[in-house]
Amino acid sequence: MPKTITIGIVGAGRIGKLHASNVMYYMPNARLKTIADTNLTPEIEAWAKNLGIPNVSRDPEDIFNDPEIEVVMICSSTNTHADFIIRAAAAKKHIFCEKPIDLTAKKVVAALDAVKKAGVQLQVGFNRRFDHNFARVHELVKSGSIGEPQLIKITSRDPAPPPPAYVAVSGGIFLDMTIHDFDMARFQAGSEVVEVYAKGAVLVDPEIGKAGDVDTALITLTFANGALGIIDNSRKAVYGYDQRVEVFGSKGAAVAENDTPSTVKLYSEAGVEGDKPLYFFLERYKEAFIGEMKAFLNAIETGTKTPVTGNDGLQDLLVGLAAKKSLAEGRPVKLSEISIG
Amino acid sequence: MPKTITIGIVGAGRIGKLHASNVMYYMPNARLKTIADTNLTPEIEAWAKNLGIPNVSRDPEDIFNDPEIEVVMICSSTNTHADFIIRAAAAKKHIFCEKPIDLTAKKVVAALDAVKKAGVQLQVGFNRRFDHNFARVHELVKSGSIGEPQLIKITSRDPAPPPPAYVAVSGGIFLDMTIHDFDMARFQAGSEVVEVYAKGAVLVDPEIGKAGDVDTALITLTFANGALGIIDNSRKAVYGYDQRVEVFGSKGAAVAENDTPSTVKLYSEAGVEGDKPLYFFLERYKEAFIGEMKAFLNAIETGTKTPVTGNDGLQDLLVGLAAKKSLAEGRPVKLSEISIG
Amino acid sequence: MPKTITIGIVGAGRIGKLHASNVMYYMPNARLKTIADTNLTPEIEAWAKNLGIPNVSRDPEDIFNDPEIEVVMICSSTNTHADFIIRAAAAKKHIFCEKPIDLTAKKVVAALDAVKKAGVQLQVGFNRRFDHNFARVHELVKSGSIGEPQLIKITSRDPAPPPPAYVAVSGGIFLDMTIHDFDMARFQAGSEVVEVYAKGAVLVDPEIGKAGDVDTALITLTFANGALGIIDNSRKAVYGYDQRVEVFGSKGAAVAENDTPSTVKLYSEAGVEGDKPLYFFLERYKEAFIGEMKAFLNAIETGTKTPVTGNDGLQDLLVGLAAKKSLAEGRPVKLSEISIG
Amino acid sequence: MPKTITIGIVGAGRIGKLHASNVMYYMPNARLKTIADTNLTPEIEAWAKNLGIPNVSRDPEDIFNDPEIEVVMICSSTNTHADFIIRAAAAKKHIFCEKPIDLTAKKVVAALDAVKKAGVQLQVGFNRRFDHNFARVHELVKSGSIGEPQLIKITSRDPAPPPPAYVAVSGGIFLDMTIHDFDMARFQAGSEVVEVYAKGAVLVDPEIGKAGDVDTALITLTFANGALGIIDNSRKAVYGYDQRVEVFGSKGAAVAENDTPSTVKLYSEAGVEGDKPLYFFLERYKEAFIGEMKAFLNAIETGTKTPVTGNDGLQDLLVGLAAKKSLAEGRPVKLSEISIG
Repeated sequence: MPKTITIGIVGAGRIGKLHASNVMYYMPNARLKTIADTNLTPEIEAWAKNLGIPNVSRDPEDIFNDPEIEVVMICSSTNTHADFIIRAAAAKKHIFCEKPIDLTAKKVVAALDAVKKAGVQLQVGFNRRFDHNFARVHELVKSGSIGEPQLIKITSRDPAPPPPAYVAVSGGIFLDMTIHDFDMARFQAGSEVVEVYAKGAVLVDPEIGKAGDVDTALITLTFANGALGIIDNSRKAVYGYDQRVEVFGSKGAAVAENDTPSTVKLYSEAGVEGDKPLYFFLERYKEAFIGEMKAFLNAIETGTKTPVTGNDGLQDLLVGLAAKKSLAEGRPVKLSEISIG
Repeated sequence: MPKTITIGIVGAGRIGKLHASNVMYYMPNARLKTIADTNLTPEIEAWAKNLGIPNVSRDPEDIFNDPEIEVVMICSSTNTHADFIIRAAAAKKHIFCEKPIDLTAKKVVAALDAVKKAGVQLQVGFNRRFDHNFARVHELVKSGSIGEPQLIKITSRDPAPPPPAYVAVSGGIFLDMTIHDFDMARFQAGSEVVEVYAKGAVLVDPEIGKAGDVDTALITLTFANGALGIIDNSRKAVYGYDQRVEVFGSKGAAVAENDTPSTVKLYSEAGVEGDKPLYFFLERYKEAFIGEMKAFLNAIETGTKTPVTGNDGLQDLLVGLAAKKSLAEGRPVKLSEISIG
Repeated sequence: MPKTITIGIVGAGRIGKLHASNVMYYMPNARLKTIADTNLTPEIEAWAKNLGIPNVSRDPEDIFNDPEIEVVMICSSTNTHADFIIRAAAAKKHIFCEKPIDLTAKKVVAALDAVKKAGVQLQVGFNRRFDHNFARVHELVKSGSIGEPQLIKITSRDPAPPPPAYVAVSGGIFLDMTIHDFDMARFQAGSEVVEVYAKGAVLVDPEIGKAGDVDTALITLTFANGALGIIDNSRKAVYGYDQRVEVFGSKGAAVAENDTPSTVKLYSEAGVEGDKPLYFFLERYKEAFIGEMKAFLNAIETGTKTPVTGNDGLQDLLVGLAAKKSLAEGRPVKLSEISIG
Repeated sequence: MPKTITIGIVGAGRIGKLHASNVMYYMPNARLKTIADTNLTPEIEAWAKNLGIPNVSRDPEDIFNDPEIEVVMICSSTNTHADFIIRAAAAKKHIFCEKPIDLTAKKVVAALDAVKKAGVQLQVGFNRRFDHNFARVHELVKSGSIGEPQLIKITSRDPAPPPPAYVAVSGGIFLDMTIHDFDMARFQAGSEVVEVYAKGAVLVDPEIGKAGDVDTALITLTFANGALGIIDNSRKAVYGYDQRVEVFGSKGAAVAENDTPSTVKLYSEAGVEGDKPLYFFLERYKEAFIGEMKAFLNAIETGTKTPVTGNDGLQDLLVGLAAKKSLAEGRPVKLSEISIG
């Protein structure tokens, strides 16, 4: 029987709670000992008690200082990620960190340096790599079934836009939303992005425009291996969360469609009607959130490399920064133009 | 260049006109010389002129007596089919006859005897064998891709019931509608039916019940090779013509879905909507009607066996008569119980 | 916060373990206190300890006699079900019992009488009603979206046949396998079966024939409300577990297709390839097993009627017995011909 | 009955023959009197005779000078289109011209001026607008079913690259292949393109690169109404002709998938296999070629505007020229930068 891994979670917001539940329900070899949130509320305390988490705290140091805790999961707000990584690395704990590591390359590099020096493991929360559909596409690409990848196409549309207040502090659509798609594109291409051209528009909500962002975007990617990529984003698909990936290559194409609540079709005089895609990321990526955690804990247990590394987090950020620059300057931007700091 | 085949058509109703158009437009080596209809109307004359048919007549003898005419296509009402076959055979003409040959086995046998004695060819109008989907299923069955056939499933539902007046003279649902499905079942099974159990209900229109028929039916077939078959029929599918075939075997299954006017899906807040099946047989089997005629003319030209023989017409009728008997007596009926006359 | 329900499980075979895991992982308000198995093994003990079940026993009486235990889940072999139901009812415990209750109507009736007298609740394990696809079909039927049901079509094929030794004691395909489909048919039709015609064949494995059973079957059902039903079964679909349901009615049809591991299609020179259906019932009905348990516990908690009653178990058995008789006698059998005891 | 339109065709290559057949078979009110080809061969003469075309000629003037001929269809090589348009206009004949009108904007404008002055009608051969799938998408867009268009996505991939010799004289992928997609994008967006960014790569055949062209491309479009467009092209999809269109808007999305030879799926141990898309444009757009001609002849007959105008041909060319410039200069190019001459 494998040994038990003791875990602390920093941050008890939506995503922290999700990971906590998944650890409690689905990770038989993991023990969630402590969850810390600087804004600890009675609601969080009740939730933690009900779930059976032994300790709650408002001080993350209760986790970093706990010698029993081997793994820290950082689920706090983005601006705290890099510091907590550095702190956790100093405490020699393995780290799972939600995406993005930071909105600046400089802080990401500092965090990755700390991880490297400490010799701990780091996985970044790009959960979509563990989606059953996209993992299957990857498997077909890896096995050579489609030959050399030539075009990577990603459709990624949210069901509803975030509040403009959120948009203002989000880092913009490319670092907040598209960064998942940049990671997916790199994952499927098996190659790094060397150039980005981003085109954006405000078609969903003028308030998003006023907040200095776009809500609709097309991003063209060029990969080191010669493949091209295209991502289309919208903040509002009225029919639900639209998440499709296609990789086209010299021997064929692998095409992933959306998931739906059921396979049922209703045939009537009005037409043939089927289900809309699963509503949003909690529904669509439910299994993928579990999958990334299992893969992370397995890497810790076996001492093997995590499947989404700190460098992945860095590269995805650099692509995002290039996209921002491209949109701002109205021209294609090479990754080499993006200064790391 | 292949020689030209000269054709006469008896009967200028809907199906006669359809075959006439198909010959004129799609059969470059065929020449439609004469169309005869005992109820010749000015409308038929105008239609024939517009299409470019040289002769119209109210006397089928103008066809049978014409030494230039090599092929007769019998598209008149069912009760005249057998006699016209016998007449055409006597005139040494090859014959295409619409289904069914007759509603009694005795007259069918007499017609087939005449054909045999005359040494002419006969094809019966079971056009669905030439449907692109069902032909593809057949190809997969023939090639062994699904192994030994074990279950043949046919869904066959019309968009709207015929008028009760028609029902009264139609010979009943099994000889009028299901007979196409019996032919399809035999075609796909590659084996003859040995037993039939038919269950029927009046669920669509009480007038059909008053006319002594059913409008909804399930027919279980047992084939000589051990396979089982099931046909489900309804006279009214509000969403259009539902025509599906599935053959399940020891190595897999071949499943044909409906055709639709387009592949387009509309994604909206209300759901995901696609096209209904093509409305009725003229739309769905448009190409199949052309295909059966090409195959027939090819058989005539090459002197090879027609792909749907007089014996097929006879066997399909016998299955239909067994189904009628089964429904009337509420028990499975063996084909051997059906007297040929 | 809802009160906790304390549970005991009788039988630690595959299905008992499945329900135990589901209770432990997914039923926050349930407490699995004891699992008993007359063939208790060290393997079961280790499994129970790992899962966190406090007590294991080889004596079911440890459950029936425990005043803390409010609910008994009967997961032992079929021949013990009725007696354990009677015992649990005597102990005033609510009961979840795996299907079938018994292979004889007489014992089922005795068990249901005991349940009635004791005033406890009983749910029978027809989990497929809780499948996301079939529940959606039911919802469309119930809401009137398809009008009056006229045809209920069920395809139910296993990926591989059971060992002939199992077949010999299974009660035959109709009571072992098709009984799930009988329940589904009744569920979707919203009406009781009044007549059955079953046709069977041995096409998969001659050993099954030697064991006195068939491995391929077509069963025609007639419902009290006039609708007709057809079930097709095979013990071996080489492409996996084939589980489809279609309800056709006066205003349309609801059609449920299979589930697949992913939505990915591989386009290549060879064709377009997609996933096979999920392999077998553990994969396909994973969520449905959780769903039935949640629905059961909710009924207990709220004191409402369970969604699958003892009478459902009885009716499904009677249909199965009628199917056996129909197959044996080669004729349609009315349910009224089946003696209850 | 509508009056007969007399037609002459200039050019008896593949596309000229296709239009000739369609006129002969499917346009009952049209009379194809003469076909002229400057490279008249005995093969063309035999083909024309077999089809029943009264006159063949090696001199297009035999058409332009024939007072009976009301309509000229220009199907000769691209470099002759503009001159023949001018000649036909001078002869006061209505014109159907294959795409593109010319590879230079200057000559296109000259041709359109001649058409305008002559007061004749002109339709350009963008047949895909008449494809059943894309017409259905357009219908949904026009009816407001998807709200305001925001993203237009076009996948357009050929099954096999043309010979490098052809590539050298083709005007490049954007004017030869993508021009159809530019027309489709404008058609669906209902708005003109104002900016183009084209990214290309040589991934299929190095010879294409040596000929100065690319074989893989992504083109980002910005429309006057604010919508964005993305086209992906490949000269070689091993699985056949990949032609998909998607329009995403404020109220939903309309998504057109490929057509296939049949709907049949083969379920086997290896997976579930379906048909590849129809092989190439002759198969896929068979009906669309007929549709464009019917629409053209109907416009002539009723004196209404043709559904694809000379200005459409001009705008599509300008977008193509902008794409060429964008690819050459590695930057987005505004349509206003493209000089008309």
